[in-house]
This record gives sequence, structure tokens and C-alpha cells, in this order.
Amino acid sequence: MSARTLAALGSPVTYHYDPVFLEQFRRTERKVGQILRTSAEVILMQGEAVLGLEAAARSLVRPGMPVLNLVSGIFGKGMGYWLKDFGAELHELEVPYNDAVEPAEVERFLESHPEIELVAVVHCETPSGTTHNLAEIGPIVKAHGALTLVDCVSSVGGMPFEADAWRLDLCVLGPQKCLGGPPGMSLISVSEDAWKAILANPQAPRASFLSLLDWKEQWHGQGKFPYTPSVADLHGVEAACDELLEEGIEASIARHERAARACRAGVRAMGLELWPRREDISSPTVTAIALRAGVTDVQVREHARDHYGVMLSGGQGAGNLMRIGHMGPTARSFYPVVGLMAVGRTLSDLGVSVRIGEGVEAALEVLAAGRVVQPAGSR
Amino acid sequence: MSARTLAALGSPVTYHYDPVFLEQFRRTERKVGQILRTSAEVILMQGEAVLGLEAAARSLVRPGMPVLNLVSGIFGKGMGYWLKDFGAELHELEVPYNDAVEPAEVERFLESHPEIELVAVVHCETPSGTTHNLAEIGPIVKAHGALTLVDCVSSVGGMPFEADAWRLDLCVLGPQKCLGGPPGMSLISVSEDAWKAILANPQAPRASFLSLLDWKEQWHGQGKFPYTPSVADLHGVEAACDELLEEGIEASIARHERAARACRAGVRAMGLELWPRREDISSPTVTAIALRAGVTDVQVREHARDHYGVMLSGGQGAGNLMRIGHMGPTARSFYPVVGLMAVGRTLSDLGVSVRIGEGVEAALEVLAAGRVVQPAGSR
Amino acid sequence: MSARTLAALGSPVTYHYDPVFLEQFRRTERKVGQILRTSAEVILMQGEAVLGLEAAARSLVRPGMPVLNLVSGIFGKGMGYWLKDFGAELHELEVPYNDAVEPAEVERFLESHPEIELVAVVHCETPSGTTHNLAEIGPIVKAHGALTLVDCVSSVGGMPFEADAWRLDLCVLGPQKCLGGPPGMSLISVSEDAWKAILANPQAPRASFLSLLDWKEQWHGQGKFPYTPSVADLHGVEAACDELLEEGIEASIARHERAARACRAGVRAMGLELWPRREDISSPTVTAIALRAGVTDVQVREHARDHYGVMLSGGQGAGNLMRIGHMGPTARSFYPVVGLMAVGRTLSDLGVSVRIGEGVEAALEVLAAGRVVQPAGSR
Amino acid sequence: MSARTLAALGSPVTYHYDPVFLEQFRRTERKVGQILRTSAEVILMQGEAVLGLEAAARSLVRPGMPVLNLVSGIFGKGMGYWLKDFGAELHELEVPYNDAVEPAEVERFLESHPEIELVAVVHCETPSGTTHNLAEIGPIVKAHGALTLVDCVSSVGGMPFEADAWRLDLCVLGPQKCLGGPPGMSLISVSEDAWKAILANPQAPRASFLSLLDWKEQWHGQGKFPYTPSVADLHGVEAACDELLEEGIEASIARHERAARACRAGVRAMGLELWPRREDISSPTVTAIALRAGVTDVQVREHARDHYGVMLSGGQGAGNLMRIGHMGPTARSFYPVVGLMAVGRTLSDLGVSVRIGEGVEAALEVLAAGRVVQPAGSR
Repeated sequence: MSARTLAALGSPVTYHYDPVFLEQFRRTERKVGQILRTSAEVILMQGEAVLGLEAAARSLVRPGMPVLNLVSGIFGKGMGYWLKDFGAELHELEVPYNDAVEPAEVERFLESHPEIELVAVVHCETPSGTTHNLAEIGPIVKAHGALTLVDCVSSVGGMPFEADAWRLDLCVLGPQKCLGGPPGMSLISVSEDAWKAILANPQAPRASFLSLLDWKEQWHGQGKFPYTPSVADLHGVEAACDELLEEGIEASIARHERAARACRAGVRAMGLELWPRREDISSPTVTAIALRAGVTDVQVREHARDHYGVMLSGGQGAGNLMRIGHMGPTARSFYPVVGLMAVGRTLSDLGVSVRIGEGVEAALEVLAAGRVVQPAGSR
Repeated sequence: MSARTLAALGSPVTYHYDPVFLEQFRRTERKVGQILRTSAEVILMQGEAVLGLEAAARSLVRPGMPVLNLVSGIFGKGMGYWLKDFGAELHELEVPYNDAVEPAEVERFLESHPEIELVAVVHCETPSGTTHNLAEIGPIVKAHGALTLVDCVSSVGGMPFEADAWRLDLCVLGPQKCLGGPPGMSLISVSEDAWKAILANPQAPRASFLSLLDWKEQWHGQGKFPYTPSVADLHGVEAACDELLEEGIEASIARHERAARACRAGVRAMGLELWPRREDISSPTVTAIALRAGVTDVQVREHARDHYGVMLSGGQGAGNLMRIGHMGPTARSFYPVVGLMAVGRTLSDLGVSVRIGEGVEAALEVLAAGRVVQPAGSR
Repeated sequence: MSARTLAALGSPVTYHYDPVFLEQFRRTERKVGQILRTSAEVILMQGEAVLGLEAAARSLVRPGMPVLNLVSGIFGKGMGYWLKDFGAELHELEVPYNDAVEPAEVERFLESHPEIELVAVVHCETPSGTTHNLAEIGPIVKAHGALTLVDCVSSVGGMPFEADAWRLDLCVLGPQKCLGGPPGMSLISVSEDAWKAILANPQAPRASFLSLLDWKEQWHGQGKFPYTPSVADLHGVEAACDELLEEGIEASIARHERAARACRAGVRAMGLELWPRREDISSPTVTAIALRAGVTDVQVREHARDHYGVMLSGGQGAGNLMRIGHMGPTARSFYPVVGLMAVGRTLSDLGVSVRIGEGVEAALEVLAAGRVVQPAGSR
Repeated sequence: MSARTLAALGSPVTYHYDPVFLEQFRRTERKVGQILRTSAEVILMQGEAVLGLEAAARSLVRPGMPVLNLVSGIFGKGMGYWLKDFGAELHELEVPYNDAVEPAEVERFLESHPEIELVAVVHCETPSGTTHNLAEIGPIVKAHGALTLVDCVSSVGGMPFEADAWRLDLCVLGPQKCLGGPPGMSLISVSEDAWKAILANPQAPRASFLSLLDWKEQWHGQGKFPYTPSVADLHGVEAACDELLEEGIEASIARHERAARACRAGVRAMGLELWPRREDISSPTVTAIALRAGVTDVQVREHARDHYGVMLSGGQGAGNLMRIGHMGPTARSFYPVVGLMAVGRTLSDLGVSVRIGEGVEAALEVLAAGRVVQPAGSR
């Protein structure tokens, strides 16, 4: 988190029915709408993004509903388990976890399955560093008359995202990723079409921590919170939104893309291989590197942490890969190169031959070509 | 929140798989166990206490399960709606909201309904300032072979509570009440008997934000969090536990009781009437005052807030009453008298004849009799 | 400190030559100027107000300079010791410490001592709760051709203060008093006349922590700090200025005056005596109460702290008196009445007969007559 | 600052005469004594280290006192100006600013000038990255019967320092350097010999913000602070001391030395030149790099900040050089390599031929040889 967001998060807490807080809550909803580029209703649920995703899926899926789930990684796979649990008649388009489902395949599938009412899709598969082409998939699904359930938890702010222009219905964003905010909230937009489906779903949660409808009816309808919101978290989320909006969404996207290009150039120059099979599905917010047989992600992660104090992530089951995150504050300055050095030097320590110096030079070359944005000042 | 807890809450955030954080999480679980006076397994869920209560009820209740719910206020009433929603065959013992269900009545009911498997009970009905006698109800239920589901959200730390000695099975505590902590977590203890029932319940949530089992199996079993916990909230909860344990649970209870006695003495001396029908069911953590016809709780609350900057609470639907909270930090120093003055002066402004000076003197007399504990120092 | 100021103070720290910080430093200087109602140059020194006062006196006083010092309490007395130490030819007008020096006496003295070049005066003698009439004294001194050195550490924000309109030359304000800010800075305004005298003083500190000239020449002249400033303190001071300016200086003054009137009404109705000999020299920011023989301020302070957790202040040597401060955040809501209750109940515990109830009612009556300003919301 | 220190700094503020704070103040003095390795009296002054240095020099120097000042950089040079201002009969041993004064030269000088009563010496000349050999100079001076005035502001915690074993008299440490604390205090130890000289000095400041004697007599003597201390700063300083003591002073020194060796190896492998003329006078806390003619430190600093968001420092007038600081938290993980990359890539952008990759590899090689300490966890 940035200095400013931390300060906001740590600011002493007012009563949650203080008029100042009520206005701040509504103002933050509007800012989230701006960031998701939507005029749809925004719900801010208290709970990490997994809460928002579960709430969204439970609200939309009624027993027997024909649903198409796009699977290109473990997040998509997990969504499928939920959809089935909640009663969907589940269809899946699955590709290897270094690939993405093509919009054309989605279109073909929907043509041959006109009964599909909902398509679930993950924008950025963080564990394997790939992305889906929502700009094309969204309009295809809408043209078909189905709804979209979008996991954009770790993409918004780091790559283009247009909820309205792309005709997306239910989008779930996590403030702790590219926004650099605190993890405790789910930021959700719900289109009119999505509300219609939720209201028509007798199984949609009500009087529950998992209920989108409670927030719509009690908070938006009557000005009462379904339960005590975290004042501290809201402070933090608003500060994170402010930082993004002040930087400018376009500028933030450009910054993430430059960090990603630097990282990929470095990986290749080091003599390592990128995990995603194509450049155009590589995520601008996280770079996944394929590990050779004989070295595991657990080894690399622990060595980098214990010897160099650098936190890297593995594939969480998506494959034998390492990830360098460049989201929010870590997409600034030389952060991506620090990750590169940690991967390089660790692999070298573990006996893999790596050209660290060449990798670092290649990454710096990319950063030098564009003006790198400074770490954000506090306040 | 106290200075110390605020500082902890605002302390910068480490990675949630940092070994230091993992150990802190486990240590905080042990401290919560100490505070609930139990050796049962402790689960710390991320989400305000209403999440813990919903998770607990959903985990325990299977369709068709005969359940007894004790209703003496709106919290108990709400629990009944949930139990029914989740499929219970619901029985209720209900009393007016200025009263409490007697242990003997519970015993009589269980004797005539041997099929009851679960009894749900609220320890402190905060909206109306009354308490249930858990010390007697707990053993009665256990002797009958049923489980207890206890809402002790706002009682623990402010009045005696003994999960093991009283044979309670599933207890849900909120850190933001008598512990003076942040609101974002549910602190839950689950007895072996309760786990047996949950494991036998095919409907108990799994792979869900509402799942107790995920925490047991993934976190306690494999050291993996079901979802990203809030590092900030955990800091705050541990600091709040530390403050209570360093003060001493007995000392904290004595402090809350003295504050409550002062408040009640003041109410009577002012010429006002207490809401609970008997002293021995009056809560040590909140004092409810009956309002006469012609003055509403909304009027009093808004006048006190707008004119005197004092936040009072009304009955939230439990009746025409005002509440002075004395929980955690507000059970120290002259805080309860400030509430009294606000009620008194506001009623006087609204045309009710009140003897403010006599009320204040009576309350101070009680506080002077015992040594009032100072506001806690920081750090 | 208010929630907002605390949050600002605790916000992570940027590099002190970060352009964002440089601009914040200059902006805060402008806000301090607004608060002192002056267009003179503002210096923000790092160090509690006593630093600013020493720096100011050392800068102005050259050996042999004829100086008049007004003494109505221990702060004024202490200034005299400094003036002498620094080489002044010292003249003093001294009154008992429950009184103030009259403007007419100052005028008479200056007429008979045309050689006086500097008049030192304390606006609010906090230890004894009295004030000097600066609105009249300032113009008298300027008409005489002398400079004023004004200790307004604890008055600005709580009572009218007009550096330019009153023709004051060197004013030193403490952010921790009526502004509710952190204690670590001295906020100083220096008129052109004062700079002329300082530049002409060969003894004025240079290349010293005590140097006003270093700040003028290095920081204002060349954009370099004489030494590393505290970024945290500046955050806190700016936040405190913002709060005052957003509330409005007039509103803040009215709030302090109401709190003081309530306090004085309560003291009298309790049967106690005010320390200042006249109402019109009583400070709006602190109320001093005379203690009868047989009870000492140390006794009262310790009893109130140990038994009731309320911090009161004694006379610090100015006399046998107790003080109830109502500065900044403590001039809101019922805070002044809490102090009254603590004094009253403590005296009663110590065997003094006091009418606590009547005192509280009288104070509440004053607060009820005007709309009491709420505690400030955070952010 | 570390997470823990920031949290401590931002923790809400108690009254500075709260017994808890008084004990914390004394405890922190003891910890500072441990860190300076001395049993001498410790004074914690409120104000950045420049205050402590000025206070120390003013306290020791009486008019006409023969003083030897060692000058190897701009800090030493500045101390000379002060010593003269305060009335010393000043002697100096001066060397070029990439060198240090040899202990043998000090010995020779003192032998030929037996009248010298005080020797002033800077341990680490931060602006040019060199150090003096205090382990030898201290005993030489003491054997001669003179006192030492030691500026160890930026050395303690990053290189060996032994106030008692080395017979040092008055030492001034800044908490914001190798301790990673806040900048607002001066941590000072004063030997018995030094106190004797100060008490015998009629010019030693008293009743002044610059007075060591006020702290000794009022705070240590009577338990009263000469002026309101900053509670927040003290929290921060204690937390910083705790972190150092928990890590272990030896471990911290080893960490700084490894960071410095990595940095120097990188500089050489890049094809650049170190500024200090010998390795054994190079500071373990900051590495100075000589710039070739045609490139200025201002150019490099601004380019690195604007293009890469990395803050580098120039020579502050000591010469045409760049500095990479590795003090406190920045002597961990890959921080020193980030500085190297910023210097390297910036010089390359400015047309200087540099082997960045080789430099990074050489630095990583040093870090890989020893286990690099992780960034400190919070709390």
C-alpha cells in the first residue's frame, strides 16, 4: 500500500452512521464506478474479493441455469466448482493454463448452445499471468442475450477495462491489487440486466453476509447498512481510488504495461522462458516465468525470501512457474527489476545458468525508453 | 478503540504468509480462547460478528433439525428468522423485550421436547439492555444432550463468561464491543460436540466465505488461509486482547459493573425509569432507559448529537428507549456520566422534567465509592 | 489531537526534499499566516514553542537594549529572566498573578520611558488563566515606536487575535494548544520592523538551531532547510491548520468562549471561586479555580487522576489553584463539564463542601443556550 | 523507517507526565546507553541531531579554550566554524575530503600542543563516505588529558562503536540513520569528565533549548522536563532502539558491512571509481562514487529521481560525487543494488560508458556469499 493509503487506513475511526461517513461511503461508490467505467450500481461489500465473487455467483445462479465457464487457470477452474455447487448446469471451455480462451471459440460455443444464460470469465489469471480478451468476449456474450460474471479482481487499473463499453454485467474488483489499497473489501458493479436476474432468482442470498440484495435494498434503498461496515477499510479504499484517479487511469495502465515489458525483456535476455504461450495474452500486472524441470517454485520462493528478503510467488498449482508481480506501487521505479534479480540470482544459486547482467540491462533499457513514474508521494 | 489498539490497527502491513504473521495469528487464537475461558478450537473469521453468527448457524443447522430459540429482544428474534431459513424446525420461548427467558422455563421446555438438538441464545440483548443467565442455561442444555449456539458478541469482557465451565458449544464474540477492538472480525469457539454436528451436516458451508470448516481444515489443518486475511484487523484484535488480559478479565468485569451501577443510580435519581423490568437482568455493558410517551428515541438521539455532540442509541425497534453504552473504553472514567448528562439535558430541552443535578450526583457517588479505573495509557 | 491530525501525524514520511513536501511546507506557512491574520513572513521552527520564544527573544534583544516586560504570571516572569540573560536593560510592569497589566499603564510607562525599544507580552497566561488586552497594547506600543514580542502560544484559535490589525511584530504560536496539533513546532510571524531589528542585532543567532535568520536566509532565500525538518510534524501541523480554517476562526473562538462561560458558571454555582480577579481578563481557553487553604493543587490533581482518570492541572507555581483546560478538541461537547465534575467530586472527597449537581446544571444551561459544536469528524 | 517504527511513531499520544511515559523515557535512555556501549549519563534532546551537536559544542567550549578539530569533510569543517564562534582557540588538522586524519597525526599534534583541552571529530563523514578511526583516536586523546566531542550521528549501528572502551566523552547520535528511527531527536551521552568541563564553563547554556544542563538538572535531577517532549518521537526512538537491540548490534554491523562491500564491488565492476582514497576509510553506511568531469552530481540526482524514482545524494559540496546510502532499512535485501542500478543507468543515459550488468552481477555475488538479512517484519 502507498503511504497515503496506509495513513488513511490508520486514521481513527468515526461512528459508521456519522453523516460524514455516510457521504464518504456514497462518494467512494461513485469513484469505484468511475474506475470500472460504468454507470451501473456499485456495491462495496466488507470482505476480501473472494466474498464478492461468491456473493456474485450465488446471486446470479439459480438451480438448473445453463452456464458457460471459461477456464484458463486455477481461478477459472475454482469458479466452475462454485457454479456447480450453486446448482448451475455447467459447461466449460478449457485451455491449458499458459493459454486463454479465444473470443471466437466463445462465439462458436454460444451459437451451438443458445440456452446459455450466463458466462463466467476471469480477466487476469494471476497465478499463471495470462489474460482474457474481455473487450471482445463481453459484446459477444451480450449479443447472445446472456449475462457476464467477471472476475476483474487483479486487472482493473493495470490494463484497459470498460464495464459499460464492453457490456459487462457483474464485475468484482479487489482494492488490494492494482489500486494498492487494503484487502478487506469487494468492489462490485451490477448492471440492470444482472439485477433483473438476481431478483428473479429465488435462491439469491437475502439476510446474509453474502447478499448483494441486502446492500441494494437496505443500504441503497433505506440508508441502513446490513451490518457494521469497516470505517478503516473504507478510508483506505477511498484513498486508493483517489490515488488512481489523480494519476489517471490511462497513465496507470501505461505504467503497468511498461513494467511488464521491462520484465519480459529481462526474462528473455536472462535466457529464461516466459510461461504464457503468447505475448498478447501476457498480463501487464504479473509476469510468469517457466521453470525448468529440476527446480521447483517452492525452492525458488524460499531461497529468494530467506537469502535476499524478496517475496516471489509460485504458480499456486497452475504449473512450475515463478511470478514477479508488478501491481499498483510495485509497478513503479525499479521494483520489477528487483524481482528479476531475485529470480535470476536465486536460479543461479540453485545451479541454473542465467545471464543476470544481460537481463537487468534489457529490463533497464525498456524502463529508460519511457519515463518511469516515481513512487507516489505521501498525502 | 484505545490508543494502543488504534496504533496496532494502523501499523503497516506485512505479507500474510510472513512467518511472523502466521505465529501472530495463532497466538491471537490462543488469547481469544483465554478470554472465552475455553480450551475449544478457536476460529478467527474475517468479517463483522454478524458473519460469525451466520456462519455458526448455517454450520450447525441441518434441514429438519429441531431447534429451540430463546427470544427476549430483536437479536434473538433475528436469529429465529435465520434458523428457519436454514431449515430448522423452529421452537421459540419468547418474552417481552424488557425481560429474559428464565433457566427454569428452558428446562421445562426441553423436558417436554426431548427432540431438541440445538438451543440458540443471546447473552446480551444490546438493543434493550438485558441479559440471559447463561451460567444456568448452558448446563441445562448440555444435560439435555443438546448443543448451544451463543451470541456473546457484546458481553464477553464486560460480564462473567465461561465457555467451558458453562458447557457452551459454539460462541461468537465481537472484538469491537467490550474488548475495544476493531469491528472487522468474528471470534468464534467451537467445542468438539459442535464440530461433530457440523461435520455430520451435509449442508454446512464449504468452499465459502461462510465456512467454519474451511478454516478448520485449510488453516488449522494445512496452514493455508481460505482467503487473504486482514493483517491490519488481526493487529488490532491482538492488541485489544492484550489490553483485556493485562487489565485482567475480573478487573474488566468489575469496571463494567461499576459503570452500570453508576448509570442506573443516576437514571433513577434523575426521575427516569430503567427499561429492563428487573435489576438482575440489566446488562453491565449498556443501560436502557424507558422514554415516556410523546418523546421518541429518534428525537433524543438527534438532539443529543446535534446540540451536545454526544452519540446515544435508541432501541433499534425493541421499544421506546434510549441507551447509554458503557463497553470497553467507555466503561472508564466519567464516560457513563457524560451519557447521563446528555440524556438528561436533552430530555429537559424537549420539555420533560428531569433532575439532572441529582442524577449526576448519584452516579458520581457510585463511582466515588469504588476506585474508578483510569483511561488506559497508550502502548 | 483530533482524529484527523493524528492520522496526518502518523502518515508515512517522505523525503524532506521531495517537491511535494517543499510545497506542503510553503502552503502550511501560508495557512499559519492566515490564522495569525498577518501578511508578515512566517517561520516554522522545529521544536516546541519554548524554542520559538527563546529564538525570538535572542534574535531581537541586543546588549543594552531597553526593554519593557509585562508580568502577570509565571510565563511573563520567565520571559524577563531570558531578556536579562540576553543582555537587555530590563524594565517590568508586574501585577499579582490573578490580574493583568492595563493598556493605560503600558502607555503611561512608555511615555515616561521613551527609550524603550521592545515590549514583551504574554497573551494568555495559561498557568493562572488570565489574558492581556493585546488589541489595545499592540497599537500603543507601535505608536511609541517600539516593537512587540508576543507569546500567543496558547491563545490563537481560542480568542480573537489579529497580528496585523493590532500592529504586533513577532508572534509565537504553539500548534498543540487551541489548534489541537502536535507539540513539536513553533509557528512564528516576523514583521518587517522586527526583521530590521534582528538584522541590525550582531548577537542575533546565526548558524544555530535557535536562528530565525537561518530559516529566512537559507530556507526562504535559497530553498534549503537549515536542518532536517520533521516531515511527520509538518503533516500534523497542516492538518491542524486545516481543521481550524474549515471550522472558521470566528466559530472556533465562539466555541472556546462558550466553553469558558459554561465552566465559569459551573464553578460559581458549585460554590467555588474563580482565580482571576475580573471576568474580562479570564481566559477563554482555560478556567482557573482558586483553592481554599488546606487543600493543595497537587492533592486535587492526583486524586482526580487516580480515582477518576481525569487529568487536571494545578497552578505550576502561580498560586493555589486548579485549572480546567478547554482548548482545541476539549472545548467541544461536554468536555468542560467533565473537568468541572472532576474538580467538584474530588474536592468533595477531600472534605470540601461543594454543590456538584448545581454546578453541572449551571454549566449545561450555558451549553444548552448555544448550539454546542460536535466533536470533529475524522477526515 | 521500518513498519514497526512507523507504527510506534503514529501511535496516539499520552500526556507527557503520565507515569507510563516517564518510565518509557527513562527506559529509552538506558537503551540508547546500551547502543552507544556506555554507562555514562544519556540525554535525549528534542530536535534533529544538529541541535545535539550545537548543544554539545556550546556546553563544552568556553572562550579561549584551545581546541583541536579534525577536518576530513564538510561536517568537520562546519564544526570548526561553530567552535570558533563559541570562542575556542581553534587548531585544525585538515586532509582532502576523500581522506581521513590518521591517529598518529593526532598523537603528534597533541604532543606538540599540550594545551589542547578538547578534540572534535566526526566518525562518519556522510557527504563524502569516509570514516575516522575512533578506536585509536579516542584513547590517544584521553591519554593526553583532553576531552572528545564525537559526531557519531550516522555511524552507530552501522559500524563498531564503543563509547566507554574508546574513552569517548560526549557523543551525539541521530536516530534517523542506522537505527531507522524518526529524525526529531538527538541521542547524547555525556561522560563524567565532560560534565565536569560543562559545569565549569560559565558560558554553558542554561534555561535554553540548547542546554544539556537543563536536562541533567531538571529532568534527571527533579523529574521535570525543561519543555514538553514529543511523545510521538519518543515512541519512534524506542521502537528503533528495540529493533536494533533485537537484531543485535553485531548483526546489524555485519549487515551494513556486507551492503557496503556489495556496493563497492559493483561500483568497480561497472568501471566507476570510488571516491574515498582507501578501502579502510570507506564508510559501511554510505558509498561515495567519484564522477568524471562533465557530469555533475545535480544532473545525476535529478535524472535518477525524475526518470527512475530513485533518490540519490550528491556530495553536498564535498566534491563531484554521488552517494548510495545503505543505512538502517536500506542496508537490507537488494536496496544497495537498486542504488547501483540507478547510478549506472543514469550515467549511461547521460553518455558515460558503464557496464551495468557486470556491476549488478558483482554486487549480487557479494550478497549471495553471505546470507542477506530480510527486511524486518512489522511488530
